Amino acid sequence: MTVLCRVAGQWQDYLPATDRGLQYGDGLFETMRLSGGRVPLWSLHQARLQSGISALCFPPTTMADVLLALDDVPLSASLDQYSAAKLLVTRGAGPRGYQSPDPVQISIQLHLFDAPRWRWSALPMGCSGLTVGVNEVRLGRQPRLAGLKHLNRLEQVLARAEFQPGWDESLMLDEQGDVIEGCYSNLLVCKAGQWLTPMLDAAGVNGVIRQWLRQQLVVTEARLSLDDIKQADALVLSNSLMGIVPIVRLDNVEYSPNHETLDAMKALQSRLESLF
Amino acid sequence: MTVLCRVAGQWQDYLPATDRGLQYGDGLFETMRLSGGRVPLWSLHQARLQSGISALCFPPTTMADVLLALDDVPLSASLDQYSAAKLLVTRGAGPRGYQSPDPVQISIQLHLFDAPRWRWSALPMGCSGLTVGVNEVRLGRQPRLAGLKHLNRLEQVLARAEFQPGWDESLMLDEQGDVIEGCYSNLLVCKAGQWLTPMLDAAGVNGVIRQWLRQQLVVTEARLSLDDIKQADALVLSNSLMGIVPIVRLDNVEYSPNHETLDAMKALQSRLESLF
Repeated sequence: MTVLCRVAGQWQDYLPATDRGLQYGDGLFETMRLSGGRVPLWSLHQARLQSGISALCFPPTTMADVLLALDDVPLSASLDQYSAAKLLVTRGAGPRGYQSPDPVQISIQLHLFDAPRWRWSALPMGCSGLTVGVNEVRLGRQPRLAGLKHLNRLEQVLARAEFQPGWDESLMLDEQGDVIEGCYSNLLVCKAGQWLTPMLDAAGVNGVIRQWLRQQLVVTEARLSLDDIKQADALVLSNSLMGIVPIVRLDNVEYSPNHETLDAMKALQSRLESLF
Repeated sequence: MTVLCRVAGQWQDYLPATDRGLQYGDGLFETMRLSGGRVPLWSLHQARLQSGISALCFPPTTMADVLLALDDVPLSASLDQYSAAKLLVTRGAGPRGYQSPDPVQISIQLHLFDAPRWRWSALPMGCSGLTVGVNEVRLGRQPRLAGLKHLNRLEQVLARAEFQPGWDESLMLDEQGDVIEGCYSNLLVCKAGQWLTPMLDAAGVNGVIRQWLRQQLVVTEARLSLDDIKQADALVLSNSLMGIVPIVRLDNVEYSPNHETLDAMKALQSRLESLF
């Protein structure tokens, strides 16, 4: 893995010690698959990053700085040597206190690494999907941050520590008991021939593959309880690195989607892979 | 200001680029007044930090590492040259992903700076307290993190940006409408001769001065609505840097505590100052 940091338009080894990304989690990130130096789903990543930039009131020049940085990656770490990247954008260094510095000099960090195989094709022999639990950690509800991929991720850190042996992922409910997402993935639900996905108006991350799936299929956003989920015909998880992958077991419930649904899911994963 | 970083028991200029404090806000902090190189309320800071260490499942050796670091501050930055410090403790560097590395090598950051004057004594001539608004940003409810001073502070960053002209501070309600705290301070309420403070079981930071006040006075934790607060006889804000200070105006309500209450508050602030 290579990590590059960028401050005031210059690449360097570290971010400032007083960077607000560290002090307050005052920043955003994107995790992306690469292909030959390109980011095939960049338009979706860019749109979500821009939503975060607007919600956190980062300077209007932030996206231009990010694009400049991506165009200026040093040859020694060129994007085409890697198959994945994590991009962080923070409000940069500042004096003590929550108040935004004025002017803001954003910081950028770029991690370049090798993506794991698409999850579906990496399933062990004889296994046709993921085993998933229900996480004890409930997501707090914060409409001002819902949908964004921001740097306040302690809930996910706590949730990851609650995984039981055998769990590949776990579903997270919010304080009201609505199912929101996995710890590191989004949830797509097939029920009576309809595709549904949890509403993310108070919690959760609006994943890029979730958005891409909504461009391929009619997917309705809905409030879904754990009972709704357990009575579904098929459950699918998605994220940028793993792609889409079925759930075969949630808690004590097993899922064996019919051929039609399974073929539709497989076709979507193939279409996704063909972009890379 | 001086900032010192410490990794694996050595002081250095920066934290690792992959530090989980930056990546996920996976850490804790304490802001403390110093006096002649000592931290007069250290036992309270230490106890809260230890609560956070336990809640986030940091290694059991974390506090020992912190104490060692504080005893090992370089002479060139000795604590007695400063009147305040911010101490950060993170889960340290790790590979990509929410899962805690094993073993964990915690990181420490120490900011040394000059504290502002105690807020009460720094009030402008003719002004006997703070003007406070009601913040638009509601705090999400997360019992697993409530009370802790952790590095996920985006709600406070958003709230600080909502301050209106003339506001010194602003009160924050949670999603249910309970009053929790200020953006950077705790709230103490005097009502019918009784001292009350919001319960912090689902949101908020259990401030060290809040805890110290509860050692000096009988203070009852209660669920308080904005109406409860507006009908109070006196409101007091507290934090480690500003001490305790009355509110003279909240929204459209003015507060003029009676002499007895005001004298009690003043005596508490004097007692606090005498520790430093």
